[in-house]
Amino acid sequence: MNSSAILLLNCPDHQGIITEVTKFITDYQGNIIYLDQYVDTIDKMLFMRIEWELDGFLIPRDKIKEYFSTLFSHRFQMEFNVYFSDVKPRMAIFVSKMSHCLYDLLARYKAGDWNVDIPCIISNHEDLRYVADQFDIPYYVWPVNKDHSNRKEVEKAEMELLRKENISFIVLARYMQIISDEMIKEYPRHIINIHHSFLPAFIGANPYRQAYERGVKIIGATCHYVTEELDAGPIIEQDVVRITHKDTPDSLRLKGRDLEKIVLSRGVTKHIERKILTYKNKTIIFG
Amino acid sequence: MNSSAILLLNCPDHQGIITEVTKFITDYQGNIIYLDQYVDTIDKMLFMRIEWELDGFLIPRDKIKEYFSTLFSHRFQMEFNVYFSDVKPRMAIFVSKMSHCLYDLLARYKAGDWNVDIPCIISNHEDLRYVADQFDIPYYVWPVNKDHSNRKEVEKAEMELLRKENISFIVLARYMQIISDEMIKEYPRHIINIHHSFLPAFIGANPYRQAYERGVKIIGATCHYVTEELDAGPIIEQDVVRITHKDTPDSLRLKGRDLEKIVLSRGVTKHIERKILTYKNKTIIFG
Amino acid sequence: MNSSAILLLNCPDHQGIITEVTKFITDYQGNIIYLDQYVDTIDKMLFMRIEWELDGFLIPRDKIKEYFSTLFSHRFQMEFNVYFSDVKPRMAIFVSKMSHCLYDLLARYKAGDWNVDIPCIISNHEDLRYVADQFDIPYYVWPVNKDHSNRKEVEKAEMELLRKENISFIVLARYMQIISDEMIKEYPRHIINIHHSFLPAFIGANPYRQAYERGVKIIGATCHYVTEELDAGPIIEQDVVRITHKDTPDSLRLKGRDLEKIVLSRGVTKHIERKILTYKNKTIIFG
Amino acid sequence: MNSSAILLLNCPDHQGIITEVTKFITDYQGNIIYLDQYVDTIDKMLFMRIEWELDGFLIPRDKIKEYFSTLFSHRFQMEFNVYFSDVKPRMAIFVSKMSHCLYDLLARYKAGDWNVDIPCIISNHEDLRYVADQFDIPYYVWPVNKDHSNRKEVEKAEMELLRKENISFIVLARYMQIISDEMIKEYPRHIINIHHSFLPAFIGANPYRQAYERGVKIIGATCHYVTEELDAGPIIEQDVVRITHKDTPDSLRLKGRDLEKIVLSRGVTKHIERKILTYKNKTIIFG
Repeated sequence: MNSSAILLLNCPDHQGIITEVTKFITDYQGNIIYLDQYVDTIDKMLFMRIEWELDGFLIPRDKIKEYFSTLFSHRFQMEFNVYFSDVKPRMAIFVSKMSHCLYDLLARYKAGDWNVDIPCIISNHEDLRYVADQFDIPYYVWPVNKDHSNRKEVEKAEMELLRKENISFIVLARYMQIISDEMIKEYPRHIINIHHSFLPAFIGANPYRQAYERGVKIIGATCHYVTEELDAGPIIEQDVVRITHKDTPDSLRLKGRDLEKIVLSRGVTKHIERKILTYKNKTIIFG
Repeated sequence: MNSSAILLLNCPDHQGIITEVTKFITDYQGNIIYLDQYVDTIDKMLFMRIEWELDGFLIPRDKIKEYFSTLFSHRFQMEFNVYFSDVKPRMAIFVSKMSHCLYDLLARYKAGDWNVDIPCIISNHEDLRYVADQFDIPYYVWPVNKDHSNRKEVEKAEMELLRKENISFIVLARYMQIISDEMIKEYPRHIINIHHSFLPAFIGANPYRQAYERGVKIIGATCHYVTEELDAGPIIEQDVVRITHKDTPDSLRLKGRDLEKIVLSRGVTKHIERKILTYKNKTIIFG
Repeated sequence: MNSSAILLLNCPDHQGIITEVTKFITDYQGNIIYLDQYVDTIDKMLFMRIEWELDGFLIPRDKIKEYFSTLFSHRFQMEFNVYFSDVKPRMAIFVSKMSHCLYDLLARYKAGDWNVDIPCIISNHEDLRYVADQFDIPYYVWPVNKDHSNRKEVEKAEMELLRKENISFIVLARYMQIISDEMIKEYPRHIINIHHSFLPAFIGANPYRQAYERGVKIIGATCHYVTEELDAGPIIEQDVVRITHKDTPDSLRLKGRDLEKIVLSRGVTKHIERKILTYKNKTIIFG
Repeated sequence: MNSSAILLLNCPDHQGIITEVTKFITDYQGNIIYLDQYVDTIDKMLFMRIEWELDGFLIPRDKIKEYFSTLFSHRFQMEFNVYFSDVKPRMAIFVSKMSHCLYDLLARYKAGDWNVDIPCIISNHEDLRYVADQFDIPYYVWPVNKDHSNRKEVEKAEMELLRKENISFIVLARYMQIISDEMIKEYPRHIINIHHSFLPAFIGANPYRQAYERGVKIIGATCHYVTEELDAGPIIEQDVVRITHKDTPDSLRLKGRDLEKIVLSRGVTKHIERKILTYKNKTIIFG
């Protein structure tokens, strides 16, 4: 497969931007293989994803960003990112004690479903080392004290590892610790969490217990980017499953696990494919 | 079709209760045509619905309640209700300005789907009188002042009508007013509301606007019994529909309408069929 | 609201078509308010929907089709249609004996949800005249003999009415008769049917009975355009609902009704909004 | 946890059977911890699942079957099976080349979600040996010739292994070979398959290609027991996911995988929990 460039942009909507951008790529002999755009008619914003083959494109790949910036960025108040399909993102996974999301992620990785590298798994517990071992992925444990007194040191060590491994984004696969603001700032819109409820219902701890107490007839799971405010970041994907009065907190936990792993993996897929734009506190997900 | 008796009961769970109750009915020549029970293993409570044909049953229908009370109620700390299939419940509908739920309810009623009478529709606006007229159902309007200063009088008039019409339960079909505690006390677990969100998310006003602001990927609707606390009563039924970043508050409103009417009508169906038991703040829904 | 032009096109995909078309509209001062396109990478076909305001557009509305044809149609082997938002399509409804879909369509129509006129309802039975009367819509009955011996005459009369009323598309709202090839040819991709199964499962008569016999755990409904082959036309919309072993053919029929009416109305909505393109035996549905 | 006995029965429905059976267990001091029954009012059949604690039950476990047979079986034309919660079923997995279902099954097994043993994985290809190795489960390969000339020998070898390992049921985790009638007879209603379509739509090969060609808007997966007729056995579980015109056969395959693995695992869970009764060509699934 040929390498391609992926451009994700957003800017205030004006007539002609789509024409200009597609003309630019076509004029310099880029073969467009994907184009999708969306206009937010309330905020009057344009969002766009274009992908074109690098083969034969007259502008060298390391100049694309500069040219695009010069020609369009200021003129249209455009924010944009360029990615290349042959540059694999590097993903770190954080886990605590539950294996279902981790297995789901690693099974896809091992099957070659994703254009991604996973150089490390990080945890506050030893429990899931055997899973990492099964897949031959280095597993790092930094236990957090009960009083959280060593959290700063732990985060420092984690950050060093993330930098050393050149990690591009983080997946919290039922990681039961709060992420510090420092780490969030280092990875803005690049930390993906799975929350085991249909957000914004049941924020915080024990959502299945909360759902049981409230007597809902449907439970959900939510994949979102982590921001400073707990469980309040941009939502990437949600799904639900029907329950009945017969369900207990335990059976909800079991049913919820299937939701959690599928919803998380769908979100991670979209992120790896560069199909997510964030704007304000929301996501635009291209198809 | 023969008339039948429907018994809904709940009590602390003990071995043998199901045996005793079914034996009682069978011994006195009642032909059981429906039996479903559920044991809440956490609260150790038994919930049961039995329906049997009155034809040939040795205990006269007006004595069933007394006999059942004498033989089982005290002994098993049982709460129960007896209904008869040939006694149609009488349903009042409250509406404001939106017609979709009202049309859905009345279309089912007119098609003969429900064993129910609808002797009146009550509103705070004239807007939907034409719908009531289409179906030849009396339409009563008591406008509520903007400052709600006349709410007591309005409720008094409404209550008089409900009593005069011998109303057994109330359906709020997108009725945009708060129901007073007095009315709730008069119809405990007998006022059915449709809330246009996936409760407990987006309680209160403008849930579609709230959903839009939060950027959820799924919206819902919730049918529940009205209790003193706003949008917090026992949930009868919920359903959801998938949305995308392309949806605006207006398109959410449109998509939500289909959810609202179907979810409300499912809840009303279960109520009319006497298939709902409430316990604590939850519902047990028999199949 | 200003009037707008809606262009639906498909053609073999070539670089630059989107640019050319959007440039054409923008150059002549059309304000584009909607643009969506989709490239079928397997068949190498481009599908596109553009909507722009007529106000200020330099080409008179009655010349748009000609200009577009001259400039693009031959050059790009393009098939296209132009619609105007201020020209209401005229919809005929065919029914037999069941009211649920008819009520659902008419409730939306009466609430003003749709930019459509409904000048007539056509049936082979008197049963639903009362519904037409409730909504003050002329109701025409042509009974079909049991041996179908008068079907030609009936269709002729129906066709005359459709022409007289200048009907642009037909909705079969649980109409239990086969539509003749002549009528299909007169309204190609303009007759919308609701089939009460998840097609292509359970084609033909009694799909709920078939679903019951097969023991499926989910039932569905399918809205599709009618073609010469029974239940085999392009699918517009489908949806499903979960069932259990407790369901009987009768309860399936009841549950299915809610699906049928919602799925049919969703399909009709998309058709009225000019958001459907058909290609081969499939639909492209714009968002 | 205490051991319990699980009784699954079906018989023609008569008044009093539930009373008799529950009384029998209670009289001999069995503590009932689960009771669910269902009456098929069309076929007039009763289906029942009862579970009671063995601790304190007066009839020895190896006599339960005999007593039950003597007291009820002939009298009520009852078919029944007794299982014990402390007897783990032994499950064999058959695979070909795709890993997603296998990983899903083994991740649950390894996490201890299931009361089951998995002593062997059987395949016609070497491809998935690495997965078996990751989980330390013996992996047996018997390649089938292209002309299927050695199928009899292969099946003979497989049957020997199944007997040697005392296998109680078989899971076909995307095993792309036909199972012989001999094996089906040896494991009646005990071979669980996942078919990658919403049966009975798209029976046979390449269902995703078929779904693509037909232009459906929803795809599904079906977990069913294998019978002599291809893809026609009793359905245990189904689920669906929404697709659009943008989906290709490849993207359907990807989306389908998540369905397949979840639907298969749900079916296997119900089988392991002894919550499935089959009757005619259908399943009764207890909650």
